Amino acid sequence: MRGAVLYAPGDVRVEDRQDPRIIEPTDAIIRLSATCICGSDLWPYRGVDRPDGPMPMGHEYVGTVEEVGDQVTTLRPGQFVVGSFWASDNTCEICRSGYQSGCVNRVLMGTVGTQSQLARVPLADGTLVATPGTPDADLVPSLLAASDVLGTGWFAAVAADAGPGRTVAVVGDGAVGLCGVLAARQLGAERVIAVSRHAPRQELARHFGATDIVTERGDAGVERIKELTNGLGAHSVIEAVGTQESMVQAIRSTRPGGHVGFVGVSHDVTLPGDLLFDSLVHLHGGPAPVRQYLPELIELICARAIDPGRVFDLTLPLEEAAEGYRAMDERRAIKVLLQP
Amino acid sequence: MRGAVLYAPGDVRVEDRQDPRIIEPTDAIIRLSATCICGSDLWPYRGVDRPDGPMPMGHEYVGTVEEVGDQVTTLRPGQFVVGSFWASDNTCEICRSGYQSGCVNRVLMGTVGTQSQLARVPLADGTLVATPGTPDADLVPSLLAASDVLGTGWFAAVAADAGPGRTVAVVGDGAVGLCGVLAARQLGAERVIAVSRHAPRQELARHFGATDIVTERGDAGVERIKELTNGLGAHSVIEAVGTQESMVQAIRSTRPGGHVGFVGVSHDVTLPGDLLFDSLVHLHGGPAPVRQYLPELIELICARAIDPGRVFDLTLPLEEAAEGYRAMDERRAIKVLLQP
Repeated sequence: MRGAVLYAPGDVRVEDRQDPRIIEPTDAIIRLSATCICGSDLWPYRGVDRPDGPMPMGHEYVGTVEEVGDQVTTLRPGQFVVGSFWASDNTCEICRSGYQSGCVNRVLMGTVGTQSQLARVPLADGTLVATPGTPDADLVPSLLAASDVLGTGWFAAVAADAGPGRTVAVVGDGAVGLCGVLAARQLGAERVIAVSRHAPRQELARHFGATDIVTERGDAGVERIKELTNGLGAHSVIEAVGTQESMVQAIRSTRPGGHVGFVGVSHDVTLPGDLLFDSLVHLHGGPAPVRQYLPELIELICARAIDPGRVFDLTLPLEEAAEGYRAMDERRAIKVLLQP
Repeated sequence: MRGAVLYAPGDVRVEDRQDPRIIEPTDAIIRLSATCICGSDLWPYRGVDRPDGPMPMGHEYVGTVEEVGDQVTTLRPGQFVVGSFWASDNTCEICRSGYQSGCVNRVLMGTVGTQSQLARVPLADGTLVATPGTPDADLVPSLLAASDVLGTGWFAAVAADAGPGRTVAVVGDGAVGLCGVLAARQLGAERVIAVSRHAPRQELARHFGATDIVTERGDAGVERIKELTNGLGAHSVIEAVGTQESMVQAIRSTRPGGHVGFVGVSHDVTLPGDLLFDSLVHLHGGPAPVRQYLPELIELICARAIDPGRVFDLTLPLEEAAEGYRAMDERRAIKVLLQP
């Protein structure tokens, strides 16, 4: 099969890779209908994270079950499925509490590499959620978004306690932040402030339900959000970047007793204890337990109640993955869908 | 009046101070029945926090109203009252959300100094809670505990989501940690693990409801708590120290999706973003909104359902405050009550 492999910073190649096969009896093999490039893929692409050697890329996927292992009981070949970046058994105590991304048997899909034609999915019964029948082709991008960016934005909104009567601010205008806007509105937030200085992203934020746009960053961004919230700060803040500046901005934009949901993958972030102490905020985040939300998200997408697939503003053949990485790195594209 | 003043690290003196008087029409003057020394008073006493000049000490207090300002409507002279270390209006949006320690008009009682015979309490209507009648003398220590250590331990237990079915670990065996044990049990926790290596504190932890004692700290303490919780970590962890080691121990002792309630005043703590991200814990804490809990705590104390006053294992006249500080500094006493 063909698949994308990162050889060095900036050097992504699509090449022949070994077809995956069932290794554990709980595995499934899927044929991908669509895959994509994640903001977090840019960390190794930019050389911030250094892989040890050639690294198969990708952890987002939707597709059709090709084959299942002997112990897989709930899936059969031909089903259309969505999974997330952590494979999870969905039966352990941590999964049952809603934290499948902390599953005691979890396997990171990034080690599999789903920017490819086929993929092995461990713990298939726990990990994969089948759609009701084969979805219309135009729903595939939204279902692919559910695999990570929508599920992650949804978790961030839940972690930030977004809901009726709340003002939610979203720091970060990448696909996750934009999906956080969508999630906050779906969860009933009264007002959603998107922090963005890029016109196409502002426009998509508005489409997803943002009521206000703030263009300032850092201290000025904090002040602007306070101005919009009677000087108190937002009830709920979603952090979807993962830098020191964005984390501090998120915490300082939140009122005492408010909630910060952070899902940007932390890079060189160190939070001063006294900032956290004095802020009186709730802080919750990390790798999103997307699996928890998949059934609900699939239902909303299939009912056409939400269209998170709008985050894909560039679609390329898998063979042109390198151009997809360049487009995201240069912020020419919000998110790139790859057709295997 | 007489009052305690810190002149330099290790140098606490009880001396004549100006009697407080009504400054704002919302003030009250109270005559203290009892006051005490807080673990956080040891930071400046040990020279970790450096005051600019002579510093009146103390922020915990119970006593009788002597005089009220013109705009005080709910209190009258002669009432026995309990307040907390942040004076708060109890009417602003932040107070109404339960975060009186983040009140937009808050005043820190530490600037008043309540290790004294009299004290001015700003925002008296919002800050002070009257007991039903004058309490029996033997209840005064428990009511004094409610002023800070119990209210703070209670907040930590609430922030850590302690409740039925939960295993709660408590890092820190000072008065706040011990009150956290009491609070966790009152909130219905099934199991409470106290981290302590001091026999008298272990004994008091057991009296307050601890079911297990862990003596190890740091990595070994984390491992021990995991052993006691099926390898998963506690559902809820209370952090009541405020150091880097205790914060990291608390976070690492918590299962994915669990809750850390931190109330130790942060000193030189910097939390690695990736630790927070990967841990998937909820983190909440800061200066406790004690005012929120005072009515309930007073009721429990007056009904003799709880006896948090047991944390006071040394009682001295106010004149001997210096010896009280030495006893706490040397860990000869858990907490020192001062009789004005």
